[in-house]
Amino acid sequence: MIYQNVALIGAGRVAHHLAKAINNSGRKIVQVYSRRIAHAEELASAYKAAATDEITNPDASADIYIIAISDDAIAEVAGQLAVANKMVVHTSGSTPMDVLQAASSNYGVLYPLQSFAFNQEIDFSQVPLCIEAADPDAKENLMQLARSLSRDVRQVDSDTRMQIHIAAVFANNFTNFMYLMAQEILADGKVDFDILMPLIEETTRKLQLQHPHNAQTGPARRADNGIIRKHLDQLRDHPEKQEIYKLLSRIIQQHFQKK
Amino acid sequence: MIYQNVALIGAGRVAHHLAKAINNSGRKIVQVYSRRIAHAEELASAYKAAATDEITNPDASADIYIIAISDDAIAEVAGQLAVANKMVVHTSGSTPMDVLQAASSNYGVLYPLQSFAFNQEIDFSQVPLCIEAADPDAKENLMQLARSLSRDVRQVDSDTRMQIHIAAVFANNFTNFMYLMAQEILADGKVDFDILMPLIEETTRKLQLQHPHNAQTGPARRADNGIIRKHLDQLRDHPEKQEIYKLLSRIIQQHFQKK
Repeated sequence: MIYQNVALIGAGRVAHHLAKAINNSGRKIVQVYSRRIAHAEELASAYKAAATDEITNPDASADIYIIAISDDAIAEVAGQLAVANKMVVHTSGSTPMDVLQAASSNYGVLYPLQSFAFNQEIDFSQVPLCIEAADPDAKENLMQLARSLSRDVRQVDSDTRMQIHIAAVFANNFTNFMYLMAQEILADGKVDFDILMPLIEETTRKLQLQHPHNAQTGPARRADNGIIRKHLDQLRDHPEKQEIYKLLSRIIQQHFQKK
Repeated sequence: MIYQNVALIGAGRVAHHLAKAINNSGRKIVQVYSRRIAHAEELASAYKAAATDEITNPDASADIYIIAISDDAIAEVAGQLAVANKMVVHTSGSTPMDVLQAASSNYGVLYPLQSFAFNQEIDFSQVPLCIEAADPDAKENLMQLARSLSRDVRQVDSDTRMQIHIAAVFANNFTNFMYLMAQEILADGKVDFDILMPLIEETTRKLQLQHPHNAQTGPARRADNGIIRKHLDQLRDHPEKQEIYKLLSRIIQQHFQKK
């Protein structure tokens, strides 16, 4: 089996879910690194792996080193991790592949497109995996690894991967913040958030049926400035929400005028 | 049965779905009004009702007149519709109840919280209905009507109803626009929108499990200004998206610093 022994650099949310999927694929987690030894030990113990907080001490028995840490630490860690020609990948959406050149001559990317949380049940086989590798053989091997973890594997270059990450920020992070704003507005009126669930589920369901361009409704889409003014007035004591409402209403109107 | 005969003022998306639910509840649609007679006829014919384009000619056999038209037309139509002490309701989220005083001494609101489309299968029994009425008897009757249409009926005053509507704009209209932005960013990179579906479904599913405050992730939540700068730079030729990304990233950071 390709990449039989895996070392995980990182013990956060991505590392947790990857470790589980990798273990389920029949591979062995041999080592977990974290700056905080307790974190490394916690994840390592679940797979009978070794734990370390010394990045300069990678387990030589690993066939692949997977760096799953926060984006701004990847370059530094790669600079300290020297594994000659062993395969090294990171899991970041917006970090170029070639920051890994410092660690090895053999490198790539395995970017799982999902928002992971601890204690979350995820069907990893449904998580889209975006892979990239410099060397054709390494790409083939990485593809094989990825296909054993997920049924949705795509080859994308660093630029496209960043675009996918930006799209995910809109579709997940910004969307969740809209839900948070909605929740706070409802709480202000002593209304439970559950009143919105059928609407939210329908919004999501519609994405399977039609282009979001055609699904757009609401006061801004209709250019109903009377309602928009009323809503902005109602939000006068909530400057964050008023600012978001104003900007998005203006941009939605511009967007649909252009077409 | 309360409100056995129903006249529908309006033949748009809300009227279509209401007509079906009302018919299913065992009531009779006696008349459909629309400014455009063809629209009135189309909806009326499905229920063997009369069609009219004269608002000053309401069917006297109706027990309730339901005004389901665009918000900015409600006051004008109510002024032309004179039905003495018959029950008149509108279906708007952000229009005060008392604009209906012009039409009748007996009035209220029946606001369905859902985004309706033609040719859409909706389980109306799951649609939250917000009701309001000036008179206690009228409120009781309207409650009975609403309960025969949906299992989720709530009494809310005009102010709270507008707050619910604003929350729905965030949770549905703005969210859908985030999906549209994401779709366009992906299209630019020749990536199919379906790559985002597992992430979007997970974002929605999490709402059932935790408060959106705790579900917030992403570069802005982590205050990862390196990634935010990269993303803004990547969006430099897309001023709409760049402006949204910049504003929401700033407000998300402010929001979580405060707490």
